[in-house]
Amino acid sequence: MIRADRKESMLKRLQAIEGQVRGLQKMVEEERPCVEVMTQIASVHEALRSVGKLMMRNYLETCATRAIRGKQEEVYDELMEMIYKFAK
Amino acid sequence: MIRADRKESMLKRLQAIEGQVRGLQKMVEEERPCVEVMTQIASVHEALRSVGKLMMRNYLETCATRAIRGKQEEVYDELMEMIYKFAK
Amino acid sequence: MIRADRKESMLKRLQAIEGQVRGLQKMVEEERPCVEVMTQIASVHEALRSVGKLMMRNYLETCATRAIRGKQEEVYDELMEMIYKFAK
Amino acid sequence: MIRADRKESMLKRLQAIEGQVRGLQKMVEEERPCVEVMTQIASVHEALRSVGKLMMRNYLETCATRAIRGKQEEVYDELMEMIYKFAK
Repeated sequence: MIRADRKESMLKRLQAIEGQVRGLQKMVEEERPCVEVMTQIASVHEALRSVGKLMMRNYLETCATRAIRGKQEEVYDELMEMIYKFAK
Repeated sequence: MIRADRKESMLKRLQAIEGQVRGLQKMVEEERPCVEVMTQIASVHEALRSVGKLMMRNYLETCATRAIRGKQEEVYDELMEMIYKFAK
Repeated sequence: MIRADRKESMLKRLQAIEGQVRGLQKMVEEERPCVEVMTQIASVHEALRSVGKLMMRNYLETCATRAIRGKQEEVYDELMEMIYKFAK
Repeated sequence: MIRADRKESMLKRLQAIEGQVRGLQKMVEEERPCVEVMTQIASVHEALRSVGKLMMRNYLETCATRAIRGKQEEVYDELMEMIYKFAK
């Protein structure tokens, strides 16, 4: 379950990212200076990270609920894996 | 100037990334499991990085040409900044 | 509170890291090839990360306990900050 | 060949890092709060990165010299590998 306000925020951000990626295509076609293109790529990475953070926050809440119900060791192992794989 | 084969490869990758981002929107709408969404986000990051690498390669060649022509100290400073800002 | 086995493991790793850093000093003094020095630096980063992971694991367990006792929103905010600041 | 001033700067930084790592051991022994330990670990990562940067700068200058003398394609491949492996 994703909280409704979070879901909407993720969808809006992903639509903006789609637009940024189309913008990147135009920049490459027009052979804009490398620094400009790299800066735009960094900005897309950053926007993607913000979506990932919303997802991670959602995940933490789910995890915590499961941890309270027991099998804590397993939940921590999974959480550590998620954190070190995705929280960049 | 971007080499023609590199430019084409960047454009193809960016079109694929646009498709991946649309896929992400669908995944969020359908509330797919967090791990799946995070894995897809990581895959978009990776694809973006491959575009960045092509751009960086292009940049290095341009830099080197300028470094040969003199003003080396400045070129190195700029290159270091680019590398540590964008090569992730 | 740090679990005893985890504390011992952290201390052993930190002693090993101290040795690696002394090794790096020798490598620089002897002007060993750049790739060798960079590889050793990467290896120290990796070893430090393993200490950070043990600490993060400890932190998660403490957090979870606090989250169960209430004030969840605050705990999640703090946890998110820790994760995105330190889990690299 | 490492430039003399750069070599001295690297050695000084590495000695400071050695001290920081010993400090970390003390912090773990005394079971200082997790956020403090993590902050100190992040600070060691940062200090190590600064040594890596000095090494990378040295490497770029060596590379450029070799690139000028020919075999450019090979030099760029090696440089790209170094950059994406070590410039973090």
